[in-house]
Amino acid sequence: MDYYAPPLATLIEHFESLPSIGHKTACRLAFHMLSQPLDKSVSFADALIQAKQNVHYCNECQNLTDKEICNICASAKRDLSTICVVESPRDVISMEKTNEYDGLYHVLHGAISPMEGITPEMIKVKELLPRITPKVSEVILATNPNIEGEATAMYIAKLIKPLGVKVTRISSGIPVGSDIEYADQITLTRALEGRREMI
Amino acid sequence: MDYYAPPLATLIEHFESLPSIGHKTACRLAFHMLSQPLDKSVSFADALIQAKQNVHYCNECQNLTDKEICNICASAKRDLSTICVVESPRDVISMEKTNEYDGLYHVLHGAISPMEGITPEMIKVKELLPRITPKVSEVILATNPNIEGEATAMYIAKLIKPLGVKVTRISSGIPVGSDIEYADQITLTRALEGRREMI
Repeated sequence: MDYYAPPLATLIEHFESLPSIGHKTACRLAFHMLSQPLDKSVSFADALIQAKQNVHYCNECQNLTDKEICNICASAKRDLSTICVVESPRDVISMEKTNEYDGLYHVLHGAISPMEGITPEMIKVKELLPRITPKVSEVILATNPNIEGEATAMYIAKLIKPLGVKVTRISSGIPVGSDIEYADQITLTRALEGRREMI
Repeated sequence: MDYYAPPLATLIEHFESLPSIGHKTACRLAFHMLSQPLDKSVSFADALIQAKQNVHYCNECQNLTDKEICNICASAKRDLSTICVVESPRDVISMEKTNEYDGLYHVLHGAISPMEGITPEMIKVKELLPRITPKVSEVILATNPNIEGEATAMYIAKLIKPLGVKVTRISSGIPVGSDIEYADQITLTRALEGRREMI
């Protein structure tokens, strides 16, 4: 790092600490910022701090928001009888983009993983329990279809089924547009298990 | 962008404005920053502003530095009789990494390009002229071997040759480790033209 002026080296290090940004990309990004007017750097710096200071978890669904209650929880148009449980705020956005779901969400911020030492207490499971009121008729478990996601779904299902709510799991199967030939065996097994009668 | 809390959307936009960062990567980077402690965002923000405020052009060679004269120009170990002219500060770093060059540099911050409307006045050519003192015996033109770089090299050669200095151009040819079979015709022509007697 001797080649760079110290303030530039520091900026490169910061860019390099971001996920998926290697040293060469970090250099390009830092040089790019130097080539921009100062107010661009100032507003970027401001955005970094503002986002961190003002964005926090929604009191209801634990999604990211800058208000006390997020837009989805506060909306009058959402179906209050369904809660879709997801692992991360990005999953909420993927769900919203389908335009097929108009219920509420619950963001766990992680999945149970004994391998990584993540216990149920470390994710937002306990915040889900008080939300299972008589108004709620279905909880959709939309955690990822991998070991951690499945374990989390099973754990939550066991926990909330006794409360008398219908608990469902999103289906696994062959992605639309892909080939059965190239599907892995577990996915194909799931696709068979999840088969539905054609109408 | 309706899906994100406004401060988060602003941060995503800033990341997205960087070169080679698309929307999905920008989202991942912004979410990553939110997952980090506040002081990480604060120091990143500080680095952005410090770099822009304190890094400027060296009074001599126009390379980036946080001092009046950069480390290379100020070094007592460099050969003051040679100046290597490059297009960008990144080229200086590439040259330094060869450990083969111990002269001085001159950074043009661009190349002449009539297509993009970049005239000789818009790059640091005039700053080079007063540096061609009797102490300087050779100027190496290490602009890129493309249309703009060649035009810039020719322009500078014409300008400074009358000052009685030796002007050289780095060679083009087949990159080390690559195949002649896959070299383009222009590169191969250059490699032939630049052939040297074996000793």
